[in-house]
Amino acid sequence: MNYRQFREWLIGSPLPTHRLAGQRLDTARALAALSPDALSSIAYANQEIFLGLVVAGAAGLAYSFPIALAIVGLLVVLTLSYSQTIRAYPAGGGSYTVARENIGVNVGLVAAAALMTDYVLVAAVSLTAGVAAITSAFPALEAHRVELSLLLLVIITLANLRGVHESSTLMSIPVYLFVFSYLGMLAYGVITAINEGPGSYTPNHFSGIGTSPITAFLILHTFASGCTALTGIEAISNGTQMFRPPESKHAVQAMRIMALLMGILFLGTVGLTQFFAATPTADETILSALARHIFGSGVLYLVIQVSTLLILLVAANTSFAGFPRVASILARDGYLPRQLSYLGDRLVFSNGMLLLATLTGVLILLFGGDTHALIPLFAVGVFVAFTLSQAGMVVHWFRAREPGWWLKALTNGLGTVTTTIALSVIAISKFIDGAWFVMLLIPLFVMGFRAVHKHYEEIADELSLRGLHHPSLPLPPPRIVIPIPGVHRGVISALKYALSISDHVTAVYVEIDPDRTEKVMNLWKHWGLGVPLEVIPSPYRSFVSPFLEFLDKTDQEHSDGQLATVVLPEFIPAKWWENLLHNQTAWILKLALLYRRRRYGKVRAIIDIPTHLRH
Amino acid sequence: MNYRQFREWLIGSPLPTHRLAGQRLDTARALAALSPDALSSIAYANQEIFLGLVVAGAAGLAYSFPIALAIVGLLVVLTLSYSQTIRAYPAGGGSYTVARENIGVNVGLVAAAALMTDYVLVAAVSLTAGVAAITSAFPALEAHRVELSLLLLVIITLANLRGVHESSTLMSIPVYLFVFSYLGMLAYGVITAINEGPGSYTPNHFSGIGTSPITAFLILHTFASGCTALTGIEAISNGTQMFRPPESKHAVQAMRIMALLMGILFLGTVGLTQFFAATPTADETILSALARHIFGSGVLYLVIQVSTLLILLVAANTSFAGFPRVASILARDGYLPRQLSYLGDRLVFSNGMLLLATLTGVLILLFGGDTHALIPLFAVGVFVAFTLSQAGMVVHWFRAREPGWWLKALTNGLGTVTTTIALSVIAISKFIDGAWFVMLLIPLFVMGFRAVHKHYEEIADELSLRGLHHPSLPLPPPRIVIPIPGVHRGVISALKYALSISDHVTAVYVEIDPDRTEKVMNLWKHWGLGVPLEVIPSPYRSFVSPFLEFLDKTDQEHSDGQLATVVLPEFIPAKWWENLLHNQTAWILKLALLYRRRRYGKVRAIIDIPTHLRH
Repeated sequence: MNYRQFREWLIGSPLPTHRLAGQRLDTARALAALSPDALSSIAYANQEIFLGLVVAGAAGLAYSFPIALAIVGLLVVLTLSYSQTIRAYPAGGGSYTVARENIGVNVGLVAAAALMTDYVLVAAVSLTAGVAAITSAFPALEAHRVELSLLLLVIITLANLRGVHESSTLMSIPVYLFVFSYLGMLAYGVITAINEGPGSYTPNHFSGIGTSPITAFLILHTFASGCTALTGIEAISNGTQMFRPPESKHAVQAMRIMALLMGILFLGTVGLTQFFAATPTADETILSALARHIFGSGVLYLVIQVSTLLILLVAANTSFAGFPRVASILARDGYLPRQLSYLGDRLVFSNGMLLLATLTGVLILLFGGDTHALIPLFAVGVFVAFTLSQAGMVVHWFRAREPGWWLKALTNGLGTVTTTIALSVIAISKFIDGAWFVMLLIPLFVMGFRAVHKHYEEIADELSLRGLHHPSLPLPPPRIVIPIPGVHRGVISALKYALSISDHVTAVYVEIDPDRTEKVMNLWKHWGLGVPLEVIPSPYRSFVSPFLEFLDKTDQEHSDGQLATVVLPEFIPAKWWENLLHNQTAWILKLALLYRRRRYGKVRAIIDIPTHLRH
Repeated sequence: MNYRQFREWLIGSPLPTHRLAGQRLDTARALAALSPDALSSIAYANQEIFLGLVVAGAAGLAYSFPIALAIVGLLVVLTLSYSQTIRAYPAGGGSYTVARENIGVNVGLVAAAALMTDYVLVAAVSLTAGVAAITSAFPALEAHRVELSLLLLVIITLANLRGVHESSTLMSIPVYLFVFSYLGMLAYGVITAINEGPGSYTPNHFSGIGTSPITAFLILHTFASGCTALTGIEAISNGTQMFRPPESKHAVQAMRIMALLMGILFLGTVGLTQFFAATPTADETILSALARHIFGSGVLYLVIQVSTLLILLVAANTSFAGFPRVASILARDGYLPRQLSYLGDRLVFSNGMLLLATLTGVLILLFGGDTHALIPLFAVGVFVAFTLSQAGMVVHWFRAREPGWWLKALTNGLGTVTTTIALSVIAISKFIDGAWFVMLLIPLFVMGFRAVHKHYEEIADELSLRGLHHPSLPLPPPRIVIPIPGVHRGVISALKYALSISDHVTAVYVEIDPDRTEKVMNLWKHWGLGVPLEVIPSPYRSFVSPFLEFLDKTDQEHSDGQLATVVLPEFIPAKWWENLLHNQTAWILKLALLYRRRRYGKVRAIIDIPTHLRH
């Protein structure tokens, strides 16, 4: 199996461009495609609220539900705000697009940088949280959480390189499995709660219910952690174009259904964990403890854990749709390397996917596969993107001034203000936990984007045909120099080729071992086709420098304004390792000519004459 | 500081070839240059004898001196035998030369393989043993023995890349310091012994004096370990040409002095350690224990340890003279990559040195810097080289039949027989300890040498001018194909160049994004200088395959027997990292043309037209 066959086995055979056709989905499937990131967030947000409050003991944990309510309030504001984005941008209004169009390029780039770090974090956090759902059920796997996370990452990456579409029916199964199994658990949980009455917190080895005082900082810090529940709610406004027409109407419907589901699941799980006083351990997540409390450790419990894993995998998968899309838009606008905008064999942005997979893998390794350690980095990017996108919408309405514009501006303004406040809370309270890293990363990304853009602009300018005179006089035939290592068939091939394109040919022999010179000169007399041979000494036994000096000299001696063309006899061994047995002078010389000797505005052509060897 | 300046700072500026002049040394300095490997061997051989016998307790250790005597007997035989090699090969008779000339190429290659493994082991063992001498004095350093060994390796490698000559006066200081400090210690030790009387072995945590029975295997195994004392005695016969004329006479003198010193130092140290019942610990070598017993832990003790380290460093240094020399001879004969025969900037075989340093570093890392673990691999190679070299001398005398030849043949024959026996003992008794590895390695090396040689012979045959008809008819001007990514200055340069060498030029545009085609065609109409433009579709968005298919098609359509020349417009960014921002199509295409599409006997010329960018 050669490389090509292996590749086709792994990711499938290439697809032709015409297969790239827009697909429209009904609301149920579009919702399944766009909501997993948002819905799955409750799997870790709940746990983060617990961990934030537990240091203040049972008294602290009493704040769980109120904090969850505050977050749901934020959810309502964001839903109203994003519904307006959906109506204004039926073709899809990502934060980058909205911020760039309405506020300016640099703000757009900040939003893009925030979005991209966020996509990487969604992938990393979803994978590690998914693995945590499984290791809660099978604690023996806990020691291998990094390997498991990376294995899932590889599987998701391969599936996406093949081209798993977020819109496929297959993808909606985990979403609805998750929604219905969790709704079932909540319903059964409420009945249990009525029968059992409230639980009380008992210390366990993991949490060691603490006795820190309940400070404002503690509450805000916990609120900031819980805000990770809101990640992903912008997805529908990014993907409005996937809905059947009228797109906006269907998308707004879907947005509302999603927000409703999120609210129920989030408040329900937080409420019940607080009511039952469910506590996580080092081996078990809080949702697993809740499910075990309600269902015992049987099949129903396992269904909950598996559906948690699956929705988190689908959520990680949404990064593989989102990140490459943003990267390709930036690449097309010249802010990222062009390669990120190329559609691969399978009609997906393969380079972007590989970049995302690499970054995600690095994060998982760096943080030892620990969701809780990754969370502080998470919310900053999301809320930067939220804020900029909504601020952009405010500007949009001010500019458009359509009927009722002030109400719309007010709604988005409210969104902007609340997310700005939330962002400040997150940035300050989580700063030393790791938010500083993202706050450093985003400006660095923006600087990188701008540097790349500057480079492309300068190149385009330099290569532009503007001001170039239409070539009238043809060039004279080139002067040719052939460096020869001796006299063999490859050299004769090169010589014959050189004579077929010019009459002005010189051969050059760099004399490293003076004992061989006479033999070479005699052979040349017989085989050299009358071409003059220059022998140049090399007291330091180097080949490249004396040859380059000769080239400079001969260019100076001829006033034709051209640089001499170098014809390189090269031989290509039959097997790659045999290259180690030859000393690669041709390659070194080529690199020296191309990179070390810069000749702005003048052309030094290099002609390779390869001789392929059978051995 | 650029790369060139850094390099000059590190290893010095280049030296011209004429500086390579043979230097002749007086006997004292030649002895200092050629003996360190042999003399320093006692630093580890002594310890190996102790470790071999200690498992049989005090009764076993009573065999130390008798085993040392047997080894000195071997030393006498080898000295006589090698004195004859010196007389027969005044220009230097290394094992490879002697075995190859007298017995045959394959035997010579076996000797060379044995020698080369041996040189690597000398370097590794000397460095780790030198570090052990220092960690004996400063046990806190023990934990860093691997790092220390590697640090010394780097220093020695750099010194040798600069060109530290084994013949320099600086090098003879450690040798004479070692000889005189050890002779002094032995003399003082004898006086102490007379005053104190014999010591007795007391168990210590390291040796835990054992009670294994004294078997023949135990004795032979210990003898085999002790034979490492003889490594390096062939050095003088390799380097005879360094002595002043009459070379042979002076070299034989030096050989005798060296053997005498080795005998005294070896028997003296083994005898005294046995007499005082000095025992090594995990932190301390046996020679350190002996020196501490004789001198206490004061300045004199430190002088002994430092002189041990220094002579071992000089011994490791001899590998840096020997290994690259053997490698360069093999490379010149076509058994190793040619690069190993090139003299570097500083007139040393730099590539061979770097290869030796790499292999030595790998060994030190693999064996955790532990001398005792390396020893079993050591003696096999040395004794293979001894045996083959002396067997070669026997054949030499049989062929030469000069007066008294039978006595000379008898002497070398005795040498051959005794080293063969010693080799068998070593190979069998040390087999499972690690000798198997070297016994596997040597044939693998020989197979490698022969594979390399076969390759070079086949290449020479294929490139040979034999049977080539003297070219009579000139080639017609080439057909030229220019792949264009669009229309810019670089493309126009390439086009103008192509037209200067041929009238038959075609431009090819691979249509990856059909939306751009019309724009490119319009630009071409204006700028294309009348050259036809072929647009070829690429449904799978790949550039290389459709282009290669086009080349095949056009070659088939033309019956001129030539392959079309490809002119590649290429642009070279100002900074290396900017290459990441471009998609390297030119390089990928070049590699595909050179390596993936083999055309035996036909030439596909590739012309690079670089455009250097200022940005």
